[in-house]
Amino acid sequence: MRVIELKETVTASNDRDAEALRQELILRGILLVNLMSGPGSGKTTLLSRTIRDLPDLRIAVLEADLDATVDAETIEALGARSIQAHTDGMCHMDAGMTRAGLEALGTEQTDVVFLENVGNLICPAEYDTGAQRRVMILSVPEGDDKPLKYPLMFRESDALIISKTDALPYFDFDLEKCEARVKKLNPMIQVFPLSAKTGEGMAAWEAWLRHSLPKKPAK
Amino acid sequence: MRVIELKETVTASNDRDAEALRQELILRGILLVNLMSGPGSGKTTLLSRTIRDLPDLRIAVLEADLDATVDAETIEALGARSIQAHTDGMCHMDAGMTRAGLEALGTEQTDVVFLENVGNLICPAEYDTGAQRRVMILSVPEGDDKPLKYPLMFRESDALIISKTDALPYFDFDLEKCEARVKKLNPMIQVFPLSAKTGEGMAAWEAWLRHSLPKKPAK
Repeated sequence: MRVIELKETVTASNDRDAEALRQELILRGILLVNLMSGPGSGKTTLLSRTIRDLPDLRIAVLEADLDATVDAETIEALGARSIQAHTDGMCHMDAGMTRAGLEALGTEQTDVVFLENVGNLICPAEYDTGAQRRVMILSVPEGDDKPLKYPLMFRESDALIISKTDALPYFDFDLEKCEARVKKLNPMIQVFPLSAKTGEGMAAWEAWLRHSLPKKPAK
Repeated sequence: MRVIELKETVTASNDRDAEALRQELILRGILLVNLMSGPGSGKTTLLSRTIRDLPDLRIAVLEADLDATVDAETIEALGARSIQAHTDGMCHMDAGMTRAGLEALGTEQTDVVFLENVGNLICPAEYDTGAQRRVMILSVPEGDDKPLKYPLMFRESDALIISKTDALPYFDFDLEKCEARVKKLNPMIQVFPLSAKTGEGMAAWEAWLRHSLPKKPAK
């Protein structure tokens, strides 16, 4: 289990760094997905299931956390390449940190890299990491009122995964109401209700992911 | 429903401002509790139940969020005084913001003020708000590994509420393991597993809260 300690990037423009990283990765045929959510929404469980479901894709994971290495260990146990980045107390990843993390992870022979961002619905929404897709997870136990409280995150995401739908019978979560609130903030967002535990709804998410892959460059 | 827009305080020392506010409140016999957690851990549900269970205490709530007014509306529906503070995109409350929020809320005829901090396990742990007690909530669906990932929040809290224990049968959450991890970070912390839905465990939390009240000043 490798660990890399990252510091906030000193740069003239994070947006410019992010755009440069994004273009480089597209040219190399690598899809970078920025996965954001609050703590405990099931990011690692979703990734584990996605990796198992898509054995033909070479998936690697850049785990960002303040501390700990549990998530990277879980991913490595599945045979996927993974590195644990520690963010020096910071609540987000910027483009420079993402680039450093990717270099440490290694991106040869890779189709998809997931950046599992710090568990937080606020700061990560404010920083472009260079990812081609921003995906946010909201879990059923968190409640259907979250779009009202963290509008920026919902506005900035390309896709919303509503996770732990197997828990719907035990919580007051109105799927339709939640989706309506989200679409009001962001009419273009794709919404995927799913359970990584039972597998329900995984296929639609995985099809979208596959569809997001950049065209491989001609050799 | 009143709303106050707050900006980050420009100050020489947040710690000094926090200490001054704390001493003032103690002298006035008011308990200020800083309630912190990730999004959707059940802060508002816990407060609603606590307010209903303790009718002899005059409880007021300062709701801090990036946006929305749903929480303050829920609290007001219970007949408790409440104000919604918006934090201008910031992921925490500082002591100056807390003071401004308390002034707008009004603290006459008040025994306890809950500051329902922004839903986030990172930034709020770094700022002293002037509260006498810091209480963190971790909900069962978030998982028992959170002390490993957000150690500062667990270290800085006087009490940990493990909420939504009614959901224990549906999630892999090891209460003992979680408590051991937390106590390793912070041997002095009080841990209260409870369900605000069923009422289980509420009495211990409410007794601790009552015990935390400052002595009323002699008239």
